[in-house]
Amino acid sequence: MKTAVFPGSFDPITFGHVDILERSSGMFDKIIVAVVHHVGKRALFTLEERVEMIGAATRHIPNLEITSFRGLTVDFLRKKQAHIIVRGLRSFTDYEYESQIALYNKHLYPDSETVFILANSNYTYLSSSGVKEAALLGGDVRTMVPPPVLEMLKEKLRQRGELQ
Amino acid sequence: MKTAVFPGSFDPITFGHVDILERSSGMFDKIIVAVVHHVGKRALFTLEERVEMIGAATRHIPNLEITSFRGLTVDFLRKKQAHIIVRGLRSFTDYEYESQIALYNKHLYPDSETVFILANSNYTYLSSSGVKEAALLGGDVRTMVPPPVLEMLKEKLRQRGELQ
Amino acid sequence: MKTAVFPGSFDPITFGHVDILERSSGMFDKIIVAVVHHVGKRALFTLEERVEMIGAATRHIPNLEITSFRGLTVDFLRKKQAHIIVRGLRSFTDYEYESQIALYNKHLYPDSETVFILANSNYTYLSSSGVKEAALLGGDVRTMVPPPVLEMLKEKLRQRGELQ
Amino acid sequence: MKTAVFPGSFDPITFGHVDILERSSGMFDKIIVAVVHHVGKRALFTLEERVEMIGAATRHIPNLEITSFRGLTVDFLRKKQAHIIVRGLRSFTDYEYESQIALYNKHLYPDSETVFILANSNYTYLSSSGVKEAALLGGDVRTMVPPPVLEMLKEKLRQRGELQ
Amino acid sequence: MKTAVFPGSFDPITFGHVDILERSSGMFDKIIVAVVHHVGKRALFTLEERVEMIGAATRHIPNLEITSFRGLTVDFLRKKQAHIIVRGLRSFTDYEYESQIALYNKHLYPDSETVFILANSNYTYLSSSGVKEAALLGGDVRTMVPPPVLEMLKEKLRQRGELQ
Amino acid sequence: MKTAVFPGSFDPITFGHVDILERSSGMFDKIIVAVVHHVGKRALFTLEERVEMIGAATRHIPNLEITSFRGLTVDFLRKKQAHIIVRGLRSFTDYEYESQIALYNKHLYPDSETVFILANSNYTYLSSSGVKEAALLGGDVRTMVPPPVLEMLKEKLRQRGELQ
Repeated sequence: MKTAVFPGSFDPITFGHVDILERSSGMFDKIIVAVVHHVGKRALFTLEERVEMIGAATRHIPNLEITSFRGLTVDFLRKKQAHIIVRGLRSFTDYEYESQIALYNKHLYPDSETVFILANSNYTYLSSSGVKEAALLGGDVRTMVPPPVLEMLKEKLRQRGELQ
Repeated sequence: MKTAVFPGSFDPITFGHVDILERSSGMFDKIIVAVVHHVGKRALFTLEERVEMIGAATRHIPNLEITSFRGLTVDFLRKKQAHIIVRGLRSFTDYEYESQIALYNKHLYPDSETVFILANSNYTYLSSSGVKEAALLGGDVRTMVPPPVLEMLKEKLRQRGELQ
Repeated sequence: MKTAVFPGSFDPITFGHVDILERSSGMFDKIIVAVVHHVGKRALFTLEERVEMIGAATRHIPNLEITSFRGLTVDFLRKKQAHIIVRGLRSFTDYEYESQIALYNKHLYPDSETVFILANSNYTYLSSSGVKEAALLGGDVRTMVPPPVLEMLKEKLRQRGELQ
Repeated sequence: MKTAVFPGSFDPITFGHVDILERSSGMFDKIIVAVVHHVGKRALFTLEERVEMIGAATRHIPNLEITSFRGLTVDFLRKKQAHIIVRGLRSFTDYEYESQIALYNKHLYPDSETVFILANSNYTYLSSSGVKEAALLGGDVRTMVPPPVLEMLKEKLRQRGELQ
Repeated sequence: MKTAVFPGSFDPITFGHVDILERSSGMFDKIIVAVVHHVGKRALFTLEERVEMIGAATRHIPNLEITSFRGLTVDFLRKKQAHIIVRGLRSFTDYEYESQIALYNKHLYPDSETVFILANSNYTYLSSSGVKEAALLGGDVRTMVPPPVLEMLKEKLRQRGELQ
Repeated sequence: MKTAVFPGSFDPITFGHVDILERSSGMFDKIIVAVVHHVGKRALFTLEERVEMIGAATRHIPNLEITSFRGLTVDFLRKKQAHIIVRGLRSFTDYEYESQIALYNKHLYPDSETVFILANSNYTYLSSSGVKEAALLGGDVRTMVPPPVLEMLKEKLRQRGELQ
């Protein structure tokens, strides 16, 4: 069975991530969507909220496992007995950054392989940070994130007193 | 009448910005230079100081309106009934970053169009942050910013106890 | 009156070119679409055929003049008393290539200004040479070129004995 | 069963290609290595010789099918009832070129998916054309191509009167 | 005598830096390795610790002088009566960033020249920040930094309560 | 004594090449300017004419040796007992291309080192092929090539019947 891991911050998951998952779910027997805890990087949503949002946004994709982890990505791979990492590329900047990470992971765990697929060209502009900035400034993000994410995003900003 | 908006931080305006304005002022009937308030990004100069410096540095360019705004750039465009954004490109990094922003703005406001012009090759190295760093470390920035900006920069650093 | 020149090979014009023309026609008072004769570069269509196809494909855009020229682009600009060049960018490779050309033109004619607009993200993949290759190998190019171009392309390949 | 196609010129196959095949053979159930006939591009080896060399160089990889085709890659995919394309990336130039091809293929065949894996950093410099140039100029290419390719390359150059 | 300066953060020095020094030491009569104090950038190691680690890691390279400085790099060059800066490039991102710095330095000090050499392809993935992150998360960094650096890194993390 | 080789086509030498030579002549004890014969690439000038033009254009630079060679660059280095190659970079495209060549040369000759310096930003646009194209189309290239090159270029085009 070929298992691939799709690690990321997903703060929050966007239609861009959903597209990558829909497309890669047909390539591998199972995809583990893994929310990474980044030391010293402030996230808007907790790990648990992010796992919950991914679940709500990907109910139509059959072969996913959704979880989170702390520590090195390669240690997570080893624990899951997986060696394939899937990442989407929107731009050259993504390519550069992801290449460095892939080589770093291969150095730490030589059996690991990172496969890249190109983001849908309609989502080239789309990033979690762009969604948060647009939402914060009152922009309409309905075309950027799935409905359950939209609700949790509004709620989160309301709690923070940014909306209302 | 064709109106274009030139949004930016201008913290402070440099000879690179002035060059872009001189060149684009001949392409459009009016250019609105718009200082953007970035949430959560510390600026050296206040919005008002930046508007003042731009005014002092661009007196020789006839068709400019200088102002500032908070919120999304596309909301500012709509309010001004403008749909053209002008941006300068110094490097590939600028191109990548600006492309993402342009696609994001086009997604939020489909009538918007971003036009790019290349920075003068003598100003490729020049950035507002480079000016601030050089000034802070005692470097000579006379060839980087117009005289009124130089004065305000010295004054600002003096207030902060960085110079004198 | 602000006149811009959109020079290119247009061998043949694609929906990508049409999109750039639709969008830039709202920015300038007049756009001169100029088919360039490249010394030593074999084209599939003659200059006259390319001018004719552009005309057929852009009837809905009001402020265009369609013509062709031989020689340096800057000499054509001078002759037309225009100083603005419009070019579309699909990718970083385009950006690099076009930047070099823009600096070269500015060197030869300092008053010239090249403005870039980003290709529609649905047309990122689209190039005249890709259209020709797909058509030659029997691919369906109806979503790549306007109907009159499709007809002329089929006719041209039929003449060359490549189709039928 | 997940089948992936690895299309290319392979004129000739290098250690870089072999590395991509070794690594991707563990990701998919079957890999079809497909030598592409490019209209109007002169190759050093015939399609048959290239298929033979690939076979000789990849005997240790179990799940490969080696063949050649003429026409569009997407038509070959459809014929083979495959929808995954595998490509290696050595550099940004590869990324740019391959991205355009991947989007073009996705446009012609929306079910197709291209996955990219990074070339081993020891083979970043390695290309079929570099091998041919080095061999032609008398350089030692033993570390660039597998032994059976080396033999056929020497033989080919001898026939052409380039060596001996 | 040709003296070159190799400025950097070296927080900490990695095998990538050592490789650049080994290779550039044969090109110039003397290399001054200069640890830069960056205003407002938190380092893991003090300037003194970094100078000490560089010394311990480069004992086998004869023509080095190791020191640190505060202020502009060009002022340090002038003080040392040197005009050559050496920098390593691992990636395009490095190239872009370093090009801007080189042009900025040349603007501030027209006699300065920056020469670039490519990182060894085995160290493309390697950065001081990657080393720190891997060490912090319990990864094995023995192949990334020389033994004396490894010891100081473990000790530093132990002090910070991150290890043990 | 540190000797560096500056290989290239120099068809013809431009002010960009002269600038690289002026700047690198201060870094090394001797620079060997080496005109490369490229198999299968048509040049406008013969190897001898190119050597002559380089000589005429660089009389003011003391430590140059000017010559030409056929074959692999690394074999030329070995013959000259040199191991340093100098190359100028005008753009990212240059960087990518030159990086591949540098890694290829290092693979063929591990002792070789390629050092890169950035082209003067005033010459970013300038290439030998651009000079030839401009001259052929009647453009003024006096700011692109030194006077003796200008004369030989005019003469060459006159012989070819392109001018007059």
